[in-house]
Amino acid sequence: MPLSTQAQSKLTTAMAKPGVLTCVQSPIRPRRSLYTSACSNSENALSCTRRKSLIFFASSLLASSAPFPHAPSLSCFLSPSIAQEVDELDQEETRVVRIFQETSSSVVYIKDFALSSIPQSTSEIGLDEEDNGKVEGSGSGFIWDEFGHIVTNYHVISKLATDTSGLHRCKVSFVDSQGSNITSNAKIVGYDPDYDLAVLKVDAVGIELKPVAIGKSHALRVGQSCFAIGNPYGYENTLTTGIISGLGREIPSPNGRAIRGAIQTDASINAGNSGGPLIDSYGHVIGVNTATFTRKGSGMSSGVNFAIPIDTVVRAVPYLIVYGTPYSNRY
Amino acid sequence: MPLSTQAQSKLTTAMAKPGVLTCVQSPIRPRRSLYTSACSNSENALSCTRRKSLIFFASSLLASSAPFPHAPSLSCFLSPSIAQEVDELDQEETRVVRIFQETSSSVVYIKDFALSSIPQSTSEIGLDEEDNGKVEGSGSGFIWDEFGHIVTNYHVISKLATDTSGLHRCKVSFVDSQGSNITSNAKIVGYDPDYDLAVLKVDAVGIELKPVAIGKSHALRVGQSCFAIGNPYGYENTLTTGIISGLGREIPSPNGRAIRGAIQTDASINAGNSGGPLIDSYGHVIGVNTATFTRKGSGMSSGVNFAIPIDTVVRAVPYLIVYGTPYSNRY
Amino acid sequence: MPLSTQAQSKLTTAMAKPGVLTCVQSPIRPRRSLYTSACSNSENALSCTRRKSLIFFASSLLASSAPFPHAPSLSCFLSPSIAQEVDELDQEETRVVRIFQETSSSVVYIKDFALSSIPQSTSEIGLDEEDNGKVEGSGSGFIWDEFGHIVTNYHVISKLATDTSGLHRCKVSFVDSQGSNITSNAKIVGYDPDYDLAVLKVDAVGIELKPVAIGKSHALRVGQSCFAIGNPYGYENTLTTGIISGLGREIPSPNGRAIRGAIQTDASINAGNSGGPLIDSYGHVIGVNTATFTRKGSGMSSGVNFAIPIDTVVRAVPYLIVYGTPYSNRY
Repeated sequence: MPLSTQAQSKLTTAMAKPGVLTCVQSPIRPRRSLYTSACSNSENALSCTRRKSLIFFASSLLASSAPFPHAPSLSCFLSPSIAQEVDELDQEETRVVRIFQETSSSVVYIKDFALSSIPQSTSEIGLDEEDNGKVEGSGSGFIWDEFGHIVTNYHVISKLATDTSGLHRCKVSFVDSQGSNITSNAKIVGYDPDYDLAVLKVDAVGIELKPVAIGKSHALRVGQSCFAIGNPYGYENTLTTGIISGLGREIPSPNGRAIRGAIQTDASINAGNSGGPLIDSYGHVIGVNTATFTRKGSGMSSGVNFAIPIDTVVRAVPYLIVYGTPYSNRY
Repeated sequence: MPLSTQAQSKLTTAMAKPGVLTCVQSPIRPRRSLYTSACSNSENALSCTRRKSLIFFASSLLASSAPFPHAPSLSCFLSPSIAQEVDELDQEETRVVRIFQETSSSVVYIKDFALSSIPQSTSEIGLDEEDNGKVEGSGSGFIWDEFGHIVTNYHVISKLATDTSGLHRCKVSFVDSQGSNITSNAKIVGYDPDYDLAVLKVDAVGIELKPVAIGKSHALRVGQSCFAIGNPYGYENTLTTGIISGLGREIPSPNGRAIRGAIQTDASINAGNSGGPLIDSYGHVIGVNTATFTRKGSGMSSGVNFAIPIDTVVRAVPYLIVYGTPYSNRY
Repeated sequence: MPLSTQAQSKLTTAMAKPGVLTCVQSPIRPRRSLYTSACSNSENALSCTRRKSLIFFASSLLASSAPFPHAPSLSCFLSPSIAQEVDELDQEETRVVRIFQETSSSVVYIKDFALSSIPQSTSEIGLDEEDNGKVEGSGSGFIWDEFGHIVTNYHVISKLATDTSGLHRCKVSFVDSQGSNITSNAKIVGYDPDYDLAVLKVDAVGIELKPVAIGKSHALRVGQSCFAIGNPYGYENTLTTGIISGLGREIPSPNGRAIRGAIQTDASINAGNSGGPLIDSYGHVIGVNTATFTRKGSGMSSGVNFAIPIDTVVRAVPYLIVYGTPYSNRY
């Protein structure tokens, strides 16, 4: 079969052009739609009876459409050869479902916005400030401890960190351990542009938070499964999956230094995933999703994505919490 | 190791720009190449002897290349440690292979094209009309019942639906239950822009069709495996896989209303996947692939893709079949 | 919830535009950072005790951060329900890890560069030539036999193959069977633009090479797992995973003819993956990663990627090795 002349001529000349590593912060902010339904998943046990109830529901649903003569009959729907294999499949899928259910409540949504003017009142409550402000970017983060410390990328909150106008605010949306949705103003505790890391703090008085489980990154293997949770393009608590594609990568930090030991993954990471956790099959955080390789500055996943290794985070964060500055700045 | 100055400077400034949800209809139409070979898969049992025959074939093939002294010897090819694990792997791969084999014959390829002039003859046969026409777009769909009803996105056939020139045609390519390839003109039975759904009908007299198995979407869990079948960029019966990334999303319908409860997945969905089924591990359809998030209008998968939940489809389609209009339009 | 008017209006008009198949060669050349750490993976047994050591490490690490009162306590880190399922998970992940460990040392990194002037000395050693040259592109390849033959795409080395200036060079980076990193000038043994294939040769005297294990492609099934190893954007030995999305595809060769029987996959394949192997779950090479479908010429994976089937490679390569030309050119 002849191929189109256009396609042929394009192939021979389609030399790739130099690309850039794009940090995956997003300015997009679709409003949360049915967040509680997603969160309520954690309350529903995923039991072995799931398949049965599926079939029963399908039956009753189709029975109710009986007035429609063209409705498909149930008899042709059940495929025995696939059904035989379903029970074994449930095991692996259930594992991924549980990883999400047990970790997603530790992932937060961070919005950076700029007020149009300095508010007259300095009330702490001012969440309605957002109505007067413009969202300048958004990203992800995760709950580090029960005291309200949040870890994220520095570049997610860099505008607030370097704000001289007093107009920038940072708002964090998260759920408490009961699944209630909370949005709170956050303060910057410390940041380290060398490693593109920052620590925020939300007021956790009276709120039971669920910190992430911290893993380690130095013994990872290429080929391991991994999972990213974050807010790509503002779609909250998005789970994507893939494998570890490479280890020991270098990615540039916001101040131009190299972050060593970065984890490469083919799990989809897009604009808005920045600062969110990369998780292994144990449900432990192994990295902080930070950058994706793209040729367009589009922030769109190419399947070549990078996370800061958790070992680096574990070394840096305690200093940021206690001293507010990186270890390297203390002397 | 120093990073290039260019890469450093790009990272700090690479703020993402607002993006758009792009519906994944495709104007590209590579002609089918070896479609029958893909379809004949369903006739070949994937037995436990597959691995043995693989190794035997490799042996005989290499033996035949003996005249070439540089041909690699077989002895170094067999890796015991991987081979030990192959039998356990077969089980999961076989399951995915079977899901494709048992559902792909229910997925159709829809082409919208515009004639350059009204044909003189009004013969129904006129499939050669395509030679006088220009393909304006293409998408996917799936067989709803044995009477020839096809479900797809409204936006795949919107030009035909709103055609006032009489020049638009819609052609559907599918296989019957014996795997024979059939291309037929299709008529619009009904459509609902509110939910981006449409029902077509092809003449199924004397043809045994294999309708999809309908699942349900309200009890899905984030983390479940899912599979998309469709025709991205015109590559027919393409299978892609991923997990459910989010639930309860809202995506805009063609008329601007919100479609609620949309399913988000990281399975690759590109231009041309529109209207095709999203399938769970049971081989049941759980959604209609509809949109991908992209910043360029390129219709290229970002790993943030959306499907209309099948529960919505199951409510809407019977009304479209019987009355030709959405339920909401009847009164 | 109202959706933004912008998003609505974009959806109805976002018709996809014609796209191109882009071959996935890359001009980007980040320098190798911690390559040895990635390669040393093969020396570390991935034993069943991994999980235990993980937990122990986490304990000691956290104990050492005891001075920091806000450090998260370990007790909340261990999730019993996930831990229960970990041992079963290990089996599949270990399999993928092993596929990478046993095949990655057979994958090479190919750089095409152009000298600014003809070197005075014609010494063979001249690897420092690169300092005087400009990298014009890069790609991947794999070790065909222990004599130093390397298989890659023709388009990866087409500039060298058609060079009339004498300024082009081709450099191959690989590891020997002990994991030592070697960079060597390569010569073109033969090439076949009809099938986008080429054979290079590096000097293998005194070097023990590990050829790939060759599989076969004619009995593949849509839905099988597959793995790509290559150097997307210069990130060496990158592993990506997916399934076989389609079979029997046609892709255009560099001279405009059709390559039949191409394998379609949703494993991420980007600029720089060209010429690298596509591998099945047995660790056998089933294809040569060659092209990705993109609308922008960006070389960025869309999830619709193509490989030349290994059966075609097995027929073509011996002729290229022995005669330097394709079989079809001999008469």
